[in-house]
Amino acid sequence: MAVIVQKYGGTSVATPEKIHTAARRIIATKCAGFQVVVVVSAMGHATDELLALAHKVAPHPSKRELDQLLATGEQVTIALIAMAIHAQGHHAISLTGPQIGLITDDVHSKARIREIDKRRILQELEAGKIVIVAGFQGMTADGHVTTLGRGGSNATMVALGAVLKAQACENFTDVDGVFTADPRVVPNARKIDTISYDEMMELSSVGAGVLQTRAVEFARKYNVPIHVRNSATDQPGTWIVAETKSMEDILVSGCALKMDLTRVTLRGIPDRPGVVAKIFTLVGQRHIVVDDIIQNVMDDRTANISFTVEHGDLADLKPAVDMVIADLGGHATFEKDLAKVSVIGVGMKQATGVASTMFTALAEKNINIQNISTSEIRISCTVARAEAQDALRAVHAAFHLDRRPQP
Amino acid sequence: MAVIVQKYGGTSVATPEKIHTAARRIIATKCAGFQVVVVVSAMGHATDELLALAHKVAPHPSKRELDQLLATGEQVTIALIAMAIHAQGHHAISLTGPQIGLITDDVHSKARIREIDKRRILQELEAGKIVIVAGFQGMTADGHVTTLGRGGSNATMVALGAVLKAQACENFTDVDGVFTADPRVVPNARKIDTISYDEMMELSSVGAGVLQTRAVEFARKYNVPIHVRNSATDQPGTWIVAETKSMEDILVSGCALKMDLTRVTLRGIPDRPGVVAKIFTLVGQRHIVVDDIIQNVMDDRTANISFTVEHGDLADLKPAVDMVIADLGGHATFEKDLAKVSVIGVGMKQATGVASTMFTALAEKNINIQNISTSEIRISCTVARAEAQDALRAVHAAFHLDRRPQP
Repeated sequence: MAVIVQKYGGTSVATPEKIHTAARRIIATKCAGFQVVVVVSAMGHATDELLALAHKVAPHPSKRELDQLLATGEQVTIALIAMAIHAQGHHAISLTGPQIGLITDDVHSKARIREIDKRRILQELEAGKIVIVAGFQGMTADGHVTTLGRGGSNATMVALGAVLKAQACENFTDVDGVFTADPRVVPNARKIDTISYDEMMELSSVGAGVLQTRAVEFARKYNVPIHVRNSATDQPGTWIVAETKSMEDILVSGCALKMDLTRVTLRGIPDRPGVVAKIFTLVGQRHIVVDDIIQNVMDDRTANISFTVEHGDLADLKPAVDMVIADLGGHATFEKDLAKVSVIGVGMKQATGVASTMFTALAEKNINIQNISTSEIRISCTVARAEAQDALRAVHAAFHLDRRPQP
Repeated sequence: MAVIVQKYGGTSVATPEKIHTAARRIIATKCAGFQVVVVVSAMGHATDELLALAHKVAPHPSKRELDQLLATGEQVTIALIAMAIHAQGHHAISLTGPQIGLITDDVHSKARIREIDKRRILQELEAGKIVIVAGFQGMTADGHVTTLGRGGSNATMVALGAVLKAQACENFTDVDGVFTADPRVVPNARKIDTISYDEMMELSSVGAGVLQTRAVEFARKYNVPIHVRNSATDQPGTWIVAETKSMEDILVSGCALKMDLTRVTLRGIPDRPGVVAKIFTLVGQRHIVVDDIIQNVMDDRTANISFTVEHGDLADLKPAVDMVIADLGGHATFEKDLAKVSVIGVGMKQATGVASTMFTALAEKNINIQNISTSEIRISCTVARAEAQDALRAVHAAFHLDRRPQP
């Protein structure tokens, strides 16, 4: 029997009523002839409330204890979903991350999945039960509770889709799917019907909030189709699938904005082999994602190095920067209030002119480009935060993303 | 190094401020030269709030899922206590019931502890850490989360005291200790300095809320002294210890009231061997505590059987009674609004006149005794619920329990 993995985000399970709505949909999927595994997030703002509670107790709570605390949010939801399914007359069992043997590395608060023991889940599915799994959590091989970071429930969903060889992962959320741009910024943004894993990964990495990069990466690796859907409707959403030939006809599939970036510049750093490696090893040990690294040699002996991080990582980053400066000399500056606008499309691989269209669109709005970075299927421009939303609208219009592509 | 097990009840950890107060006391105990293991309950009314949430989702939630849900309450507290200890500059680690390998039977919502793997705790203690354990919870050998029933945190405390051969279990609560009667009912009730395990077990079983019978039973079995104390003061509370010779000089140590009892009477039941066993097997399978069983033979062929249960068990009991009636004939009646007043004292073993003092005290207040039951160190009288508090006050006065015993 084919397996479907469904995932319900926090807003889709925020109240007892919504939990029953989710339960009805889960049961309908089971009755349609599937074995159903459901991954759920914490209810509504439960995670934020637990975080607030922790910060009332300690200004800098240990990440190990924060994981122990936050993991309770999903455990509450799984029990309630199972109860709702029982109340509607069907069989279900809830299982936590540790209970399904979801083993992670020991990087608390940002753990990565190492393995899942699918036997427990298969045993319950074969007994005719719907299996409700707590997303976002796992445990180390030593038995410490870990969390997978914000959006970690999607990582759980895709990992389960992969180990169970699911027909699809249905990601139920509070939006209709993946859009050509954030509709709150670009009112005429359009829902995308189908997008490739690579495009989705690039979109996620540059700010599209629907699905995390590593969840999509994992889905691509195991070729698990993901269907991003609105839990409030029965409308189809966006399918994220392997790239097909016809996708290349579309020059640009979507665009995205990443707000709240800070550019860190280390000035007067010695220009000798190994220095850059040392800096980014120290930063990497803190599991901070760094982008747009630029190195300028100033004279025979010194260089300036700049890179971009998210505001949220600054508290973790600063001790590393202080260590670098103490060790190597030089000094650090931090420019806040930056943002990055990006366009993504597999069609770029073969086509030309995408960059010039983007730069022209920004120039016409008098928006200064502070930095440019590219991949095979993406072009990103760093701009002032105050101009970022105008930049996104200009780019969306320039590529006519409001119109459905004509294959 | 000697081990102290401390337990903090829900009211002692109800707010971030109280959590810090508890943390200070825990650290002080560690600094006094002990290895400290702390058992905590859910914060304040957290368990009741989770129960209310469950009942919003399902009128009769499955006990397995209820356990999965309720266990989160203690997991929240352990993480916060560990964070508070860290914030005060000391080492601590939180561990859930499953993480300390607390294995129970599979009777969800009323599970009994089978074993604890003390190695994990000892390893952390030897690393210099204060170990914070979630009370009230464990798991079956199959990995299902279980809870130990209301007051289960005390069972956890005593079990840890036993396996770790603790010098003492300190049970921090919101009262000053064990009283000669409930001070809310008997204003001149007096704090008891020392009481034997047997007396405390009897007191608990007949309504004194401080410590559950089976927690005390376990403490007696492994001879772990329990110190019941108020978390808001540094005053000594009540020590629960093995019986000493001098305790026998005290005729009556305390009295207690059990409210909200229902007498179930099965009329016209066949009077033949095996019938009573059949009835109480059906009731026992539902883990309902039955008291004061009385059987009257009516004629050659039929008998009436009555027994007492707590109101709270009625919903579970009724299906069993229905099965009995369907199978054996007869009919059932339920008398609510009963209560039971009891006096307890190891001195009763040797002394006489305790029963007559009690009956006289009740008679002088015109209180009708509906049933009497006794043990070696206890006398209990069933009375109307409306007269129960008067009955307790009368008995307390008759034995002069407001006065400290003169040895």
